[in-house]
Amino acid sequence: MASEGIEQKMEDLNVTKPSTSQSGEPTEKPAKQDKERRDQKKAAKPKQQQGQGKQGQGKQGQGKKKEDDQDTKGITVTKAEDLSEWYQQVILKAEMLEFTDVPGCYIYLPRSYMIWEEIRDFFDAKIKAMGVENSYFPLFITEANLQREKDHVEGFAAEVAWVTEGGRNKLEKKLAVRPTSETAMYSYYSKKIRSHRDLPLKLNQWNNVVRWEFKHAVPFLRSREFLWQEGHTAHMTEAEAGKEVLEILDHYAAIYEELLAVPVVKGKKTVNEQFPGAHYTTTIEGFIPAVGRGIQAATSHCLGQHFAKMFDITVEDPNQQVKDGEKRDKLHVWQNSWGFTTRSIGVMILVHGDDKGLVVPPRVSNVQAVLIPVGINNKTTPEDKEHINNEVDKLRKTLKGAGVRTELDDRDGYSAGYKFNEWEMKGVPLRLECGPKDLAKESVLAVRRDTGEKFTIAIADLATEVPKRLETIQKEMLQRASDIYASHRKIVREWKDFVPTLNEKNVLLVPHCAGGECEDEIKKDSAATVEGQEVDARAPSMGAKSLCIPAEQPEEIKEGTKCINPKCSQNAKEWVMFGRSY
Amino acid sequence: MASEGIEQKMEDLNVTKPSTSQSGEPTEKPAKQDKERRDQKKAAKPKQQQGQGKQGQGKQGQGKKKEDDQDTKGITVTKAEDLSEWYQQVILKAEMLEFTDVPGCYIYLPRSYMIWEEIRDFFDAKIKAMGVENSYFPLFITEANLQREKDHVEGFAAEVAWVTEGGRNKLEKKLAVRPTSETAMYSYYSKKIRSHRDLPLKLNQWNNVVRWEFKHAVPFLRSREFLWQEGHTAHMTEAEAGKEVLEILDHYAAIYEELLAVPVVKGKKTVNEQFPGAHYTTTIEGFIPAVGRGIQAATSHCLGQHFAKMFDITVEDPNQQVKDGEKRDKLHVWQNSWGFTTRSIGVMILVHGDDKGLVVPPRVSNVQAVLIPVGINNKTTPEDKEHINNEVDKLRKTLKGAGVRTELDDRDGYSAGYKFNEWEMKGVPLRLECGPKDLAKESVLAVRRDTGEKFTIAIADLATEVPKRLETIQKEMLQRASDIYASHRKIVREWKDFVPTLNEKNVLLVPHCAGGECEDEIKKDSAATVEGQEVDARAPSMGAKSLCIPAEQPEEIKEGTKCINPKCSQNAKEWVMFGRSY
Repeated sequence: MASEGIEQKMEDLNVTKPSTSQSGEPTEKPAKQDKERRDQKKAAKPKQQQGQGKQGQGKQGQGKKKEDDQDTKGITVTKAEDLSEWYQQVILKAEMLEFTDVPGCYIYLPRSYMIWEEIRDFFDAKIKAMGVENSYFPLFITEANLQREKDHVEGFAAEVAWVTEGGRNKLEKKLAVRPTSETAMYSYYSKKIRSHRDLPLKLNQWNNVVRWEFKHAVPFLRSREFLWQEGHTAHMTEAEAGKEVLEILDHYAAIYEELLAVPVVKGKKTVNEQFPGAHYTTTIEGFIPAVGRGIQAATSHCLGQHFAKMFDITVEDPNQQVKDGEKRDKLHVWQNSWGFTTRSIGVMILVHGDDKGLVVPPRVSNVQAVLIPVGINNKTTPEDKEHINNEVDKLRKTLKGAGVRTELDDRDGYSAGYKFNEWEMKGVPLRLECGPKDLAKESVLAVRRDTGEKFTIAIADLATEVPKRLETIQKEMLQRASDIYASHRKIVREWKDFVPTLNEKNVLLVPHCAGGECEDEIKKDSAATVEGQEVDARAPSMGAKSLCIPAEQPEEIKEGTKCINPKCSQNAKEWVMFGRSY
Repeated sequence: MASEGIEQKMEDLNVTKPSTSQSGEPTEKPAKQDKERRDQKKAAKPKQQQGQGKQGQGKQGQGKKKEDDQDTKGITVTKAEDLSEWYQQVILKAEMLEFTDVPGCYIYLPRSYMIWEEIRDFFDAKIKAMGVENSYFPLFITEANLQREKDHVEGFAAEVAWVTEGGRNKLEKKLAVRPTSETAMYSYYSKKIRSHRDLPLKLNQWNNVVRWEFKHAVPFLRSREFLWQEGHTAHMTEAEAGKEVLEILDHYAAIYEELLAVPVVKGKKTVNEQFPGAHYTTTIEGFIPAVGRGIQAATSHCLGQHFAKMFDITVEDPNQQVKDGEKRDKLHVWQNSWGFTTRSIGVMILVHGDDKGLVVPPRVSNVQAVLIPVGINNKTTPEDKEHINNEVDKLRKTLKGAGVRTELDDRDGYSAGYKFNEWEMKGVPLRLECGPKDLAKESVLAVRRDTGEKFTIAIADLATEVPKRLETIQKEMLQRASDIYASHRKIVREWKDFVPTLNEKNVLLVPHCAGGECEDEIKKDSAATVEGQEVDARAPSMGAKSLCIPAEQPEEIKEGTKCINPKCSQNAKEWVMFGRSY
């Protein structure tokens, strides 16, 4: 049973092929399995329904000791040996997320939602400075509207959840739950935009969308409902639209690099991989070293005039001279759409987490420093103990005053060691230990979560030193992750090196013709070969797809260079980044 | 046609009885009607589909003049003569909201969404200070979970939208779109709460909910999808839960009174009117003077232990002494839930708006002061004009520096008068006119939107005087509205005065037995009588229901006072506020 569950979960993180479950529902074994395990630990609840029944509450209630036993176990597998089980234990035990009885839909607990709030505030300020305004459009989209852009509807048809009943009545016309809001918004754009003076129109919304995928759901990375912002803008010219597309992409990269300390590669999607209905799609691509896979981090699309034509969003040419009574020509506006999702939190967890659990970058950590009184034992007098706790509480106030999000863990009956493990599992960037000896030396012992490095900080310097150290941690986390990513982006010039290099957990920069069919061929051939070779169990029979055409090309493609695909007769046009991906 | 449309719309604002439209869909005539009218003005689009087609773009594109003709018309009816038509013109022309092709679902445009952001930031700070944490739970709820609390599901069954198809497959089990999240959240609570040390648990979420009502939809006030926050907390004792219920109610009242300048009456709902599944419901009740109707502004519920019993949310009695091996008794937790919705924006519009359009309280207005250059005509030299605009732009910078959200309207080709009307229609609190004469006197002419009062402000005092005036406006808007509300809360001691006083657009404080059936009788009898009398066309045959039991009782109920309902044999227990309502 358990092993089944684990295999199942490994698949979850490693396969992107559709599941074969009859109903098409992603099998939620991992959740159930895990619940079972945990419930057994805390004196079994019935399995059928999470949260039902509480036989044995008694045992569990005697509790603290028992809870210790359970929690101090911490993460029971290493990231290397079983990424999927590791990931699930981390997000559950660090209280980032919970499973529900709705397959593919999850609970974002305060510890992860707070990160989303940080991202929102950061990005919201950037786009408001660009003149973007927030708004809210309906959750439901009529079938008629959804289908107005051909490529768009084809791209989403398989993923749309439909409302067909309201109250006790059957609806005359079923309604789509938005998978994205182009078709929900652009009828309004057509009405609102009446002349060039109404341009640019720049609206954004922070909302929830639903994509009823039948791939295995993975918390944060691929869920049926997720949170995001979606920006939708209309411009007079392609140049103006294109400029914005890249500005937004830079802001997206900044969220990853400056907040989440996660490096990304900027580029453009190939035609095969671009957004349904887009003119072109720009993207930032992340990398998960543990499995050597790329992951799409966020995308910013230029929709061109496709939607403008379908929704008739036009203005009159302001520069055209006409005689009285004559009409000016109609110009279709140039549109962009861009979205950033809660997937980013999952990427952060996968990139930074280690065998002890979560590692959260200081800027997005709801607790940045945790103060733990130490050197208290059964010989300590109540007076001494009170004295220590009082002194440490002074330190808490000092740090709070310095704007550091600080927690004091002075819980009774928990050993210092137990507390260390718990806060490490939760990924708090800096631990500050303070006991009688430290107080005597008027200093605290600081321990970095990311490196384990220990150092003392004079109490007098706390207010200046701790914020400085937190910034150092933030910068070094990004630097380390960037070095790793860079070392796994390999230039490959010949097909013979393609799959072997791929199997060494790399993404590849290859000379490519940029042709769609050729891309499909590469995907097929890189998959087949892997299957034949039975490589690393955690990199199953999955082919490499094009991740992006990096904005920063490694070198110029020499005249007459062939496409890397031996079956392809074309010349290479660009360096394209290929890789296995989520 | 048009008049039909208007009657229809009047109903929208005045009837709360279900519509009889066959499909059960609220007839969206108002929207369509209005679209037609507006589309005709701007050179007709086809009616079927808003935003479709743009024949005659030409005419409209020659444009500005034509637009002037249209827009300067402003609001074409008075608030008194046709509240419903007035309301619709105001929200559309002031760009607060737009209709969509999904009945009962609306677009919240930046000018209204920004108000929602102000409310969110204000309330979010208050609850975070109370130790409430934000989170996010799934949009979809399984039928099994939704039905676990009997009263609750009965209360919502008629209003639930169901998802039955995902992608191209029929779902094995249909999923409810959350009408509220008690049943989505409490399975988690049962799992999370393992001991008294896990209490209190205080989670909140900002999200969208769907209630597929078959009453006439009214923008902001009654829509099928709306935005809100919902707080859900669990406590050890009833006392602790009860304390929080009232703290939250105070914060809700503060949003209305301090931000929206709308007075409310705090109280408790009668059993008839309380939340399905609640132990008791506290409420704040607003008042719409134009029709003399009450409106529920927000509610804060103590759920008691009802849900805790259904979802088995228990802890062991921490105070019970037991021998080793013996189990402590299980205690069910005490729960609260409380929600505040975008309806509040509609209440603000109805309370403060006037015949010129919107009147927005300064604290929530996205533009607090608008600067308009005046005294520019065709005799003005380009140099003088440039000089004036430059000087006025300096004033804009000064005000911005003082933290005033300021807009400078220096558009060419629009008369000052046109601009005055437009900004009045949009409800900007303070207009600042500045021309050659003003500059000569080193002052500007200020005009209050709420009172029309004019006064000069020395340019030297701008940075201090404008913020002061805005605060004055905020306070006086609340004061005026409070006086009006107070003058329309009438104490009525005898049934003979009940309906007549009601028909004078009042809400009534009456001695009542607090019995549910008696309440229904009053509703029936106060309705019938009105029908008989054929009173004011905008107060149709609708009965009075109990709005709340005011926390502040007008006086003590004297021993032996009878219930006001002549058919009721009971003695009065409390003063209950009755009224027609939305």
